[in-house]
Amino acid sequence: MRFKNYYVPTLKEDPADAEVISHKLLVRAGLIRKLTSGIYSFLPLGLRTLKKITQIVREEMDRAGCLEVMLPVVQPAELWQESGRWDFYGKELLRFKDRNMRDFCLGPTHEEVITDLIRHEIRSYRQLPINLYQIHTKFRDEIRPRFGLMRCREFIMKDGYSFDRDDEGAEKSYFEMYNAYKRIFQRIGLRFRAVEADTGQIGGSFSHEFMVLADTGEDTIVVCTSCEFASNIEKAEVKIKLNEKESLEVVPEIEEVFTPNKHTVDEVAEFLNVDKSKIIKTLLYIIENEPVAFLIPGTRELNEAKVKSALGVVELRMATHEEVKEWSGCEVGFAGPLKLKVKRIYADNTLLHKKDLVCGANKKDYHLIHVDMDRDVKVDSYLDLVNIEETDPCPRCGGKLKFLKGIEVGHVFKLGTKYSKAMNATFIDEDGKEKYMVMGCYGIGVSRIIAAAIEQNHDENGIIFPPSIAPFEIIILTLDLKDSKVLETSESLYKFLLNKNIDVIWDNRDLRAGFKFKDADLIGFPIQIIVGKKGVAQGIVEIKNRKTNEKLNISISEFKEKFEQIRQNIWKEWGIL
Amino acid sequence: MRFKNYYVPTLKEDPADAEVISHKLLVRAGLIRKLTSGIYSFLPLGLRTLKKITQIVREEMDRAGCLEVMLPVVQPAELWQESGRWDFYGKELLRFKDRNMRDFCLGPTHEEVITDLIRHEIRSYRQLPINLYQIHTKFRDEIRPRFGLMRCREFIMKDGYSFDRDDEGAEKSYFEMYNAYKRIFQRIGLRFRAVEADTGQIGGSFSHEFMVLADTGEDTIVVCTSCEFASNIEKAEVKIKLNEKESLEVVPEIEEVFTPNKHTVDEVAEFLNVDKSKIIKTLLYIIENEPVAFLIPGTRELNEAKVKSALGVVELRMATHEEVKEWSGCEVGFAGPLKLKVKRIYADNTLLHKKDLVCGANKKDYHLIHVDMDRDVKVDSYLDLVNIEETDPCPRCGGKLKFLKGIEVGHVFKLGTKYSKAMNATFIDEDGKEKYMVMGCYGIGVSRIIAAAIEQNHDENGIIFPPSIAPFEIIILTLDLKDSKVLETSESLYKFLLNKNIDVIWDNRDLRAGFKFKDADLIGFPIQIIVGKKGVAQGIVEIKNRKTNEKLNISISEFKEKFEQIRQNIWKEWGIL
Repeated sequence: MRFKNYYVPTLKEDPADAEVISHKLLVRAGLIRKLTSGIYSFLPLGLRTLKKITQIVREEMDRAGCLEVMLPVVQPAELWQESGRWDFYGKELLRFKDRNMRDFCLGPTHEEVITDLIRHEIRSYRQLPINLYQIHTKFRDEIRPRFGLMRCREFIMKDGYSFDRDDEGAEKSYFEMYNAYKRIFQRIGLRFRAVEADTGQIGGSFSHEFMVLADTGEDTIVVCTSCEFASNIEKAEVKIKLNEKESLEVVPEIEEVFTPNKHTVDEVAEFLNVDKSKIIKTLLYIIENEPVAFLIPGTRELNEAKVKSALGVVELRMATHEEVKEWSGCEVGFAGPLKLKVKRIYADNTLLHKKDLVCGANKKDYHLIHVDMDRDVKVDSYLDLVNIEETDPCPRCGGKLKFLKGIEVGHVFKLGTKYSKAMNATFIDEDGKEKYMVMGCYGIGVSRIIAAAIEQNHDENGIIFPPSIAPFEIIILTLDLKDSKVLETSESLYKFLLNKNIDVIWDNRDLRAGFKFKDADLIGFPIQIIVGKKGVAQGIVEIKNRKTNEKLNISISEFKEKFEQIRQNIWKEWGIL
Repeated sequence: MRFKNYYVPTLKEDPADAEVISHKLLVRAGLIRKLTSGIYSFLPLGLRTLKKITQIVREEMDRAGCLEVMLPVVQPAELWQESGRWDFYGKELLRFKDRNMRDFCLGPTHEEVITDLIRHEIRSYRQLPINLYQIHTKFRDEIRPRFGLMRCREFIMKDGYSFDRDDEGAEKSYFEMYNAYKRIFQRIGLRFRAVEADTGQIGGSFSHEFMVLADTGEDTIVVCTSCEFASNIEKAEVKIKLNEKESLEVVPEIEEVFTPNKHTVDEVAEFLNVDKSKIIKTLLYIIENEPVAFLIPGTRELNEAKVKSALGVVELRMATHEEVKEWSGCEVGFAGPLKLKVKRIYADNTLLHKKDLVCGANKKDYHLIHVDMDRDVKVDSYLDLVNIEETDPCPRCGGKLKFLKGIEVGHVFKLGTKYSKAMNATFIDEDGKEKYMVMGCYGIGVSRIIAAAIEQNHDENGIIFPPSIAPFEIIILTLDLKDSKVLETSESLYKFLLNKNIDVIWDNRDLRAGFKFKDADLIGFPIQIIVGKKGVAQGIVEIKNRKTNEKLNISISEFKEKFEQIRQNIWKEWGIL
């Protein structure tokens, strides 16, 4: 492609609404433009990258034996009512009525549509397993769309669905997808981790997320430095060995102590001179219209994803000040589990058999001391409720943990029979019995990968694209257009690369060199070939590796012979070839 | 692809709701499935054909120098309000509110979005012309979705938009697209005509439709047997030479005659013994809340598209019986242009200077005779209001006309400055003046092409796909799977074709031969290679041309050498190579 015939509207200024680097660079490099909040147009350069990712995803899906389909964006409400998600799914599901006042939604995901298709098509175990996927537009009406392509409303997703005869088959399908996903992110050239994850609104029995590692990631990943354990913090279990000695300890009777104006854990711990881990935080919530209390150690944070998953609920909200006052019978800051007017009390596992604790007395300016969980507190259930800390032991091997930041770009779920039961997707098995199909579902945020790639790979000058997904792999920068030899050399290199089917753009614009360098760096073409008057006079051109900033001179006469090796080395540096 | 690993759910029965052959065959051959009224899922076979069409369209757009983008499906109301189409566009525009109660719509077309993009990007004439296109999902909330992929609600369209400095440039862009469209439909292998067309809801100064010829087409195309004239009947002008003698004739004064119970043209003509062409039909309508009358000859039909276009209105409706009575002062069937209580009277061009006509007397059971249009009727405007008839002369050369049936698959519009003015899309021209960009827009109904191809190419056994868009170009039918020589031969042919990058599916299912033949014919693979025990024993396989039903035997030993020629001949028969 000749730059002059192309449309590359780079900008000098960051967009006013951009908070993260990928958003800034995507707009400045001319890859996308905002239409309205959370909705973007892909300009030619952006679409090229999107298509390259799409193609890698498609090839790996096909290689894994999946079949590509295309399912509608607009979906009838009936199917969502049948699965139960019409009410269950939040406001992210954009609902509307058609001209005949029938209810529809814009598909944020396609479990219902695919299950409806398959239940009408598959009758016998002989037709199973089947694994269908699509790469298509999705819509989620995010409450706060932001970060450009990271969290937008309309986006491109690969979503796939497997149907198996039994659990064993479903697990095989799951791990085939797991491995295909690994190949995909390797081919794209990203540093990533597959981590255990929460199943959230999709449901199902277990799942893994694929996380692109980046300091700016919204997700925290917990990895073990000794074993293979890797998990989203939302999911990572806190597993602390019981201190047998402590659990057998006998403590004095509960005592009410005056703690004037001491509301926070820090204040109470200091005032009473106890370790913060000895203080019980009593957190009050409304779950399914009922008051509930969570007890956790003063040093820990409640993990709402774990709460939802453990209790099987979709929504929870913190109690208001008025509710806290009503249930505890006193001012905010002194609530405790004893004589609390709530329906249920859940305690974190780390409080099990704990003695000599401190908690609010449900009385202004008073706390209780010498609290024994077993003796004094009526707990409905001990659960894993809190965030794991970097200082906790690995829940699998007890080893040392490390926290990383990541951006979720893929998610695989073993759904089991959640949807096939709700929507009656059955088949006749070899034994003549009617059984529910066992499902899996597998998503990749195709457009989000672009943002994640940039969050991971950029510098002060702009994007550093992996060569597999750059809009063009190579840019030829012709510095002195008026010099006929320079022009000739450029054109001959351009045609040579084109003929080798290499993806090249030739910056043949009549602009200052500095301007062209800036654009090339900003857009992040992995390989720059610089053709200037001085070099050409000496019979050389320069090749710059955008990732390492390394430059090397190559003699024009040897270019055709040597270039492919240079190119392959650059791909290798990305870990791709 | 091996058939066994593929998903091809052919059906024996036509779907209950299918009225046209393409709909029946698309479902029966396992290309699509209905999700809900007017919304279809593409199964693997259907998606392959869709992608092949997409690829041809993309290649020709790129060849013509257009740049591909991807614009959002969900569009904010503000842009449509700015262009004026939020109110103007009918209920086909599906409108809804997001979670923040802001108005949005599903894009049926993207003039607003692209004009908004371009007005923010283009500042100088140096950046023009620019021609952007996308191939993406569209939604139109059709009042009566039907005919499968012919008239559905969610569909895939290629839409492109050109921006030029001036009219001359815009016309150049227009005809580049016109020619690209011709190449596209030639490459797809369809018999088609480019015809002059009405500009409808899109607006603009002129346009052509690309019509796939098929007896089942919804559109009537008027072509001249002598010159190049070709037009949609909605647009084809009726141009009849004035009969000078007749126009100078002097007729007696108007006379009221008793025509008891004679309401229709036929009845009145018979009763009064006059030619039907001498009777004026007075048709009463409401346009923009005002009563309007159209006068046309008794032999003709009013063409509402022409009315809309001539008067520049979007909607019109026939008067109710009550309104007719009120305006004419008598029962329905006797309305005439004299003393009629309407705001405006428009007469068809063919009535100009006509004498000795008959019309309703606005009095029950009476008509007027000897009516002279010039002398007696107050006409606001003579316009081209009626459908052309096959017996009319060609409006361009006077030659003989022929009517054909067609399916619209493409439409090119010269928009002019309609949108750039409404949305203030300007640029600074070479002379330093700010000017409006001159636009064109260009659509192809990508998914509809599949239906049109089938309407044009099918027989009693199924679809006959052009080789360029068949889901697979070749099917190898292995008849005796248990015979090791047959299996060996099949596999070697399969691998040979795969290695040549030819799109082949191998029917390796363990099913009766008849069943496999039926499926192959139903799906319409253009080339069938039949490998059977008897043939293989004689060293031959059979090649069947689905289009002509011709079969020929080819010796297995010569297959590799001769097959390419046979294949090329089949493409040539389709007029593609």
